[in-house]
Amino acid sequence: MPSKPPDGEHRGWIIPIGGAEDKDTNPRILQRFVDLSGGSEADIVVIPTASRLNETGLRYETLFSGMGAARVSVLDFDTRRDCQEPNRLARLAEASGIFFTGGNQLRLSTILGGTDVARTVRQRNAQGVAVAGTSAGAGFLSEHMIAFGKEGSSPRASSVRLAPGLGLTNRFVIDQHFRQRDRLGRLSAALAYNPFAIGIGLDEDTAAFISPDDTLEVEGSGAVTVVDAHDLQFSSIAHADEDDPVCMLGLGVHILIAGATFNLHTRRASAGRLATRKT
Amino acid sequence: MPSKPPDGEHRGWIIPIGGAEDKDTNPRILQRFVDLSGGSEADIVVIPTASRLNETGLRYETLFSGMGAARVSVLDFDTRRDCQEPNRLARLAEASGIFFTGGNQLRLSTILGGTDVARTVRQRNAQGVAVAGTSAGAGFLSEHMIAFGKEGSSPRASSVRLAPGLGLTNRFVIDQHFRQRDRLGRLSAALAYNPFAIGIGLDEDTAAFISPDDTLEVEGSGAVTVVDAHDLQFSSIAHADEDDPVCMLGLGVHILIAGATFNLHTRRASAGRLATRKT
Repeated sequence: MPSKPPDGEHRGWIIPIGGAEDKDTNPRILQRFVDLSGGSEADIVVIPTASRLNETGLRYETLFSGMGAARVSVLDFDTRRDCQEPNRLARLAEASGIFFTGGNQLRLSTILGGTDVARTVRQRNAQGVAVAGTSAGAGFLSEHMIAFGKEGSSPRASSVRLAPGLGLTNRFVIDQHFRQRDRLGRLSAALAYNPFAIGIGLDEDTAAFISPDDTLEVEGSGAVTVVDAHDLQFSSIAHADEDDPVCMLGLGVHILIAGATFNLHTRRASAGRLATRKT
Repeated sequence: MPSKPPDGEHRGWIIPIGGAEDKDTNPRILQRFVDLSGGSEADIVVIPTASRLNETGLRYETLFSGMGAARVSVLDFDTRRDCQEPNRLARLAEASGIFFTGGNQLRLSTILGGTDVARTVRQRNAQGVAVAGTSAGAGFLSEHMIAFGKEGSSPRASSVRLAPGLGLTNRFVIDQHFRQRDRLGRLSAALAYNPFAIGIGLDEDTAAFISPDDTLEVEGSGAVTVVDAHDLQFSSIAHADEDDPVCMLGLGVHILIAGATFNLHTRRASAGRLATRKT
């Protein structure tokens, strides 16, 4: 469960990114994360646990420093024992922005799950700190994480496996590299079990900036596909065998681009500034 | 425009198939087409124009004969001149079932479009003859055909090009190999121009059997994704540049499996016999 914000305070932004975000020509997603973390006063911690490559964390350290952050540190928690290390936890508790890199999201959940690191990130987010993740790091942010999934076929009962994630919120389930890998089927199947959550499919170089009041705004060059199963008329998942295709009638789908918004409470999409754009 | 059925008669079934239909173990789609064409009295014409392979037509001839059709002929219209050939047109006019193979749908529209062959197929369908097509053959059946499309990326204004198709109906736009190639984006973009039509995304080995009263019923091992833009709340396509991603808010999506139905007039989905299935 998400940590409760202290009275009178707002939780920080939650920023899932679909992977392959632009780092050179137009790094608007990463820059906006730095800005929301305090801009020239930003104190950013990069957690590269999902990745097995040593350079992953350093790459973001260089990028965020170049974008004007006051201080950037890479904290690599490589074992559950690392997650109890007081110096690193103290450093994490100072951060005004926390960033999870891509890689394997099961490394995130198996190494960080239930540790003081996970608890500290939730607390900091509740206190107003921005938390972003890209690719696997995006999938990990919510309470319900897609741990495994098949791609490129009809939704089948076996096409998705959920696992507990970091738990900054339970309002959505993230799927990343969405349109590049065709994941409407598996995201829909994930919602079939319980239509409470909203499915968020992130294209590459595209992010959902989720404000403290749970309004999602899109940034980046692609689209965010919002799948809302709230008015689901019928689902066959309760009776489906593992390899059966799944029938789902009455899904609401919104394809949002930069500037459009979706409120996770009212479930209403808005064209935002796009509505007034002239030819 | 579709030919009008004679008074008191019903048009025949329209059967788009998503490609790669099972031809050996469980050829339920092809068998049902034979049954709707008259079963043991079926007189089927196979049109392999979309394909450049000589064996394509013969393969279906063997299959349909093996399924009990009384008579099967392959009519290969390879040029527009072929489409004026009286013997072939006479043979086509006798058919109780007409089948378009896969291949390249622009070969279908450029060779058959506006010819007596296209007119005869529309007339025969209006008189009750079943018309089926697989893959490119499926895409060609409707008035509006997806001629080109990009795959695996966000819907963009440039991601789809429509061309006139055979015109058995104008109620839907077909996209085939749907989930295998991620085409939600391009199908949605096709609907953005005019939400009148209903988007039908066909998985491989899956068909939409569209009855004379315009009720679509699914057959096969995969799913049919119905995209209904009737209640579209906002689309950015009128103002989008070629390479801009397209924003579409308020799409209705139904994922139907074998047994489920969708009425193209009322736009209502039904679980059909799935609703009463027990565990």
